[in-house]
Amino acid sequence: MGRVTARRPVLRIRDGVHSERPDTLVTEEPLEIRVGGRPLTVTMRTPGNDFDLAAGFLVSEGVVRSPDQIAAIRYCAGATTDGANTYNVVDVVLAPGVAAPDPSLARNFYTTSSCGLCGKASLDAVRTATTWSVADDPVRCTPEFLATLPNRLRDAQRVFDTTGGLHAAGLFTADGSMMSLREDVGRHNAVDKVIGAAVRAAALPLRETVLMVSGRASFELVQKALMAGIPVLAAVSAPSSLAVDLAADHGLTLIGFLRGESMNVYTGARRLALHAVT
Amino acid sequence: MGRVTARRPVLRIRDGVHSERPDTLVTEEPLEIRVGGRPLTVTMRTPGNDFDLAAGFLVSEGVVRSPDQIAAIRYCAGATTDGANTYNVVDVVLAPGVAAPDPSLARNFYTTSSCGLCGKASLDAVRTATTWSVADDPVRCTPEFLATLPNRLRDAQRVFDTTGGLHAAGLFTADGSMMSLREDVGRHNAVDKVIGAAVRAAALPLRETVLMVSGRASFELVQKALMAGIPVLAAVSAPSSLAVDLAADHGLTLIGFLRGESMNVYTGARRLALHAVT
Repeated sequence: MGRVTARRPVLRIRDGVHSERPDTLVTEEPLEIRVGGRPLTVTMRTPGNDFDLAAGFLVSEGVVRSPDQIAAIRYCAGATTDGANTYNVVDVVLAPGVAAPDPSLARNFYTTSSCGLCGKASLDAVRTATTWSVADDPVRCTPEFLATLPNRLRDAQRVFDTTGGLHAAGLFTADGSMMSLREDVGRHNAVDKVIGAAVRAAALPLRETVLMVSGRASFELVQKALMAGIPVLAAVSAPSSLAVDLAADHGLTLIGFLRGESMNVYTGARRLALHAVT
Repeated sequence: MGRVTARRPVLRIRDGVHSERPDTLVTEEPLEIRVGGRPLTVTMRTPGNDFDLAAGFLVSEGVVRSPDQIAAIRYCAGATTDGANTYNVVDVVLAPGVAAPDPSLARNFYTTSSCGLCGKASLDAVRTATTWSVADDPVRCTPEFLATLPNRLRDAQRVFDTTGGLHAAGLFTADGSMMSLREDVGRHNAVDKVIGAAVRAAALPLRETVLMVSGRASFELVQKALMAGIPVLAAVSAPSSLAVDLAADHGLTLIGFLRGESMNVYTGARRLALHAVT
């Protein structure tokens, strides 16, 4: 896995007995994303799929939505004072005519936090920015299908097994294929990597798909799903109030606490093919 | 709990049976932090202890370290176009002579991500910024004491019990008292709230304390502990490679996977009073 994991010594204590041994940790390093040579943001991420991460971030920001809008993505050699390539700086060259993101402070605030100043303003901002509508997406899923996703996500998580320290995002079609899975020390990065792989494959909008994430469903994750045209977001843990409000406002189906055969459907329950209550 | 939780309808599916009922969710709303009226950052947080959050953020950023450096903290009325007070905008007025944070784009990048461009640069940046040294902190803890912390954190988490969706940070003295506990939808916010309460009480540096956090130990959490002078950081889940490197570099004791009687000590094991290996 190369730079995805790192070994460090650890003192293990188990039932009062201690022993020293090496431990495998998930690697966390900063990635600076530049657009046309200008710094846009820095995110703490697990190295790997960095071009997908950069592309996905630009989708979430509303800068690109198709591969022809990206002329090139490359690591910046000479980004450090000694001229070495750290592979921690990526530059995205936009195609002619594609508007670069506004690097002003105000925009940076609003986009890196993915919000406005209150819930209502946030929803308005996203409504304006969203390119695709997911409200009319015809996808349907059964609870039985959704119940398989957490285990499928976990089974495919190679790095989690060795480190216990990674978030994952998996993209599934409604007929059950896994389109992609990405792991990262940051939840948002894992989702950006999935979306970035899709935009680079000209697969946006991601109609009739289900995005499954480890952990919680925050406002930002719902926003990222919307920006990629994903109609169903399922999370292992709890959503926030603002995540539910944004999902409801846009007709996205939001499922939380997806564990075993149990789940909570917060919005868009029309997409679940349900048996009658007995 | 007021705005800390919100009720939303939910469709529950359990073993094939579905039912509709209201569910309690953790509230997530943006908080804009201003310094002297100028916007500095926006964070998605759970409302409550907002002044602590703002103060703690400024400690993490290296702007303040004692209460006399803060002249006032207040909610901004009229922050919205209709003049209403959303309680989502906080302005911190610094005392005369305290340098305001540089709101330039470059600084914003580096401080909101709390890092430089590579692991080494990050460590250098933090070493320069850190006010207190924790390397010589004389605190000692037994594994038996540390093993009590996860349950004490969980027992004190009032909101988690109703929503299942919150992170927590608890600050303990080495003799076992809980100095403070804060919950938030964001891990970093929970830690900033704990540190902010401490700086407002003139309690920095937080010598001979243990900070216990739910979830993982990232680079940023180690950095925040260092900026507050906390010598021991314990997490329920895994640390990242960069978190371990930063902790080692500064002499902070970093413990991960603290569950029951088991734990992994990644750095600073000298602070653990250990029985001989049998």
